[in-house]
Amino acid sequence: MDDLLRDLQHTLNHEIPLTRHLGLRVEQYRDGRLTLWAPITTNLNHKSTAFAGSLNSVLTLAGWGLVWLLLKEWGLTGTVVIQESSCHYRRPVSNDFTASCQQPSADELARFEAQLRSRGKARIELTVEICQDEQVAVTFRGRYVVHLTAKSS
Amino acid sequence: MDDLLRDLQHTLNHEIPLTRHLGLRVEQYRDGRLTLWAPITTNLNHKSTAFAGSLNSVLTLAGWGLVWLLLKEWGLTGTVVIQESSCHYRRPVSNDFTASCQQPSADELARFEAQLRSRGKARIELTVEICQDEQVAVTFRGRYVVHLTAKSS
Repeated sequence: MDDLLRDLQHTLNHEIPLTRHLGLRVEQYRDGRLTLWAPITTNLNHKSTAFAGSLNSVLTLAGWGLVWLLLKEWGLTGTVVIQESSCHYRRPVSNDFTASCQQPSADELARFEAQLRSRGKARIELTVEICQDEQVAVTFRGRYVVHLTAKSS
Repeated sequence: MDDLLRDLQHTLNHEIPLTRHLGLRVEQYRDGRLTLWAPITTNLNHKSTAFAGSLNSVLTLAGWGLVWLLLKEWGLTGTVVIQESSCHYRRPVSNDFTASCQQPSADELARFEAQLRSRGKARIELTVEICQDEQVAVTFRGRYVVHLTAKSS
């Protein structure tokens, strides 16, 4: 895991203590896609599958983490907050799971960065998915708001 | 707390272990409204307010718990699963918080019960809110599906 992902893992574990109980791990960030991992054992529900609240937490954090990484790449410092989300639990998740958030289109990213730099504030909508056995088990859409606190470049 | 609420608390803590880390407590069930409570200390985020994943977990469980109570009242046994949810984080939650789920209208409840008894399966949409300082901080809408496993009456 490179330094940036170690830093994200540290930030999640120290600033959002519940992530330690979720067993959350930053798995990889490749080709604009951030993947978080969590074990089934600590996230079980009454049906011995993954608890919806755990799934939602990991989905929310995958989107949050992607925005956190974008800010680092752009040399910007700010706070990232989720404003709205919707979640469709399509299939039960019965094993350790990953949530993956893909960067939006280049146009959308450019609009987001430009708005952040000019106004110090911007919103972005992200899609996150949990897959199992090559099928989508949970789909999530979240709207995140960023407020810049200082420009480091 | 009466026996039914003790039973719900036990069910949540034993079947969904994350509820212990959330510090979740079943607070009351009065006039068709179930209220769950959670402390801020174990659910903090990077802004020292409540983590969205914790809020979403407690909201999800308030709706789940209400359906669980309805089944008990009707003498039915089944599994309750969330299918879809949407969540609007309107204001940061900076203190211990409660999530309250009110029973839907009598007509809607009657339809739900009749469908459960006739088909052994039914869906219900529920609204849950987190309030703080007499203002709504988070609104949640969840669609739950119940499959009866046995009829105890």
